[in-house]
Amino acid sequence: MLPFQIIAFDADDTLWHNEIHFKSTEAAFRGLLRTYHDEAWVEARLFETEMRNLRRYGYGVKSFVLSMIETAIELTEGRIQASEIQQILEWGHGMLDQPVALLPGVVDALSWLQDKTRLWVVTKGDLLDQETKLARSGLADRFERIEVVSEKDAATYQSLMVQAGVTPEAFLMVGNSVKSDILPVLAVGACAVHIPCGATWAHERVEGDLPPFPVLENLGMLPRWLEQR
Amino acid sequence: MLPFQIIAFDADDTLWHNEIHFKSTEAAFRGLLRTYHDEAWVEARLFETEMRNLRRYGYGVKSFVLSMIETAIELTEGRIQASEIQQILEWGHGMLDQPVALLPGVVDALSWLQDKTRLWVVTKGDLLDQETKLARSGLADRFERIEVVSEKDAATYQSLMVQAGVTPEAFLMVGNSVKSDILPVLAVGACAVHIPCGATWAHERVEGDLPPFPVLENLGMLPRWLEQR
Repeated sequence: MLPFQIIAFDADDTLWHNEIHFKSTEAAFRGLLRTYHDEAWVEARLFETEMRNLRRYGYGVKSFVLSMIETAIELTEGRIQASEIQQILEWGHGMLDQPVALLPGVVDALSWLQDKTRLWVVTKGDLLDQETKLARSGLADRFERIEVVSEKDAATYQSLMVQAGVTPEAFLMVGNSVKSDILPVLAVGACAVHIPCGATWAHERVEGDLPPFPVLENLGMLPRWLEQR
Repeated sequence: MLPFQIIAFDADDTLWHNEIHFKSTEAAFRGLLRTYHDEAWVEARLFETEMRNLRRYGYGVKSFVLSMIETAIELTEGRIQASEIQQILEWGHGMLDQPVALLPGVVDALSWLQDKTRLWVVTKGDLLDQETKLARSGLADRFERIEVVSEKDAATYQSLMVQAGVTPEAFLMVGNSVKSDILPVLAVGACAVHIPCGATWAHERVEGDLPPFPVLENLGMLPRWLEQR
């Protein structure tokens, strides 16, 4: 018998690769503007545009593409060609259409957990993009509930638990982002397991003193961690 | 005592104006390309691009902006200027930032319904955009639950009812789209009230023989309709 009634998983970079696709598109974008500006400067300005648009656009590939186009026009003072903007649009299509690559241990962990507890996905980002990725991942049937939220803060987790009628002690969140998957969950008194992923988007980085929380190398280690509790 | 345990409302063009903003941006877009092409042809090609991208982008302003940019590059064979694409991006910002204009009777109907039954919003479109519109509308507190879904089909409504533990007879949907708010709801045996709105997006139009359903002029008529049942 598991001590958690609900185990919720983040999706991007917890169940499947995501950030590496953003990083490689970003590298191509820096290449596109190389004749105009230093690459580090392009990267910094793109991030600035993304942060300025975050409140308006939210997370996800469409927002990223719109911010790339805006940055390209700005940084070239309007000299960018339509064919290059077309190229940026096509990068977006490629990101949205590409196959979903599961992370190590995901299938094993979900198979072990199946029928032992209620499994959820709690992810932020673009609703349709997250739903289609889940469909393409072949994992959709494993989850009782898929929640795509606009922000993963303490209030969001609190309201999910209230809606589901579970106490914080019975809720475990598993994810790769300390900022989105761990700290707000601990803040409402629930439990969280951190599974770091190679790349972390600058916006998700946290600094300073952190409360203690368990860290596992990959999702395949989750069953043993649960058994040892 | 109302005969419905849950009354769910569509958002765009049911609670507030939406399609008129798309229509007026579309008119500006046709104006932008007027020197290249006939306006009716621009409109038809934009709709084609939107439909081609629907599976990939989903609904909402960001998708609309990306499809306008793609269409503009295509229809000008790459001759469109970066400053004109910048203009399209700014139309998108304007659409996302603009104040929410409630439709007639909305506040009265919601006030009357308050505490009489559970009120939901069930809307498709972009998650963040819908949530911020609801926040800006001042109506967010009126609703027990906000569901932003990627498609409003029978399966979606069915799963919402199952999740909430209500039978179809106890569920009423209110909305302006026959295709999204009425037909799939009737298909699962629940009840639906149609409140037509001036503009209907081509994608939401339906043809052919329709089952009967009640039609009200505006949301302000809903209380009387409920009382007379």
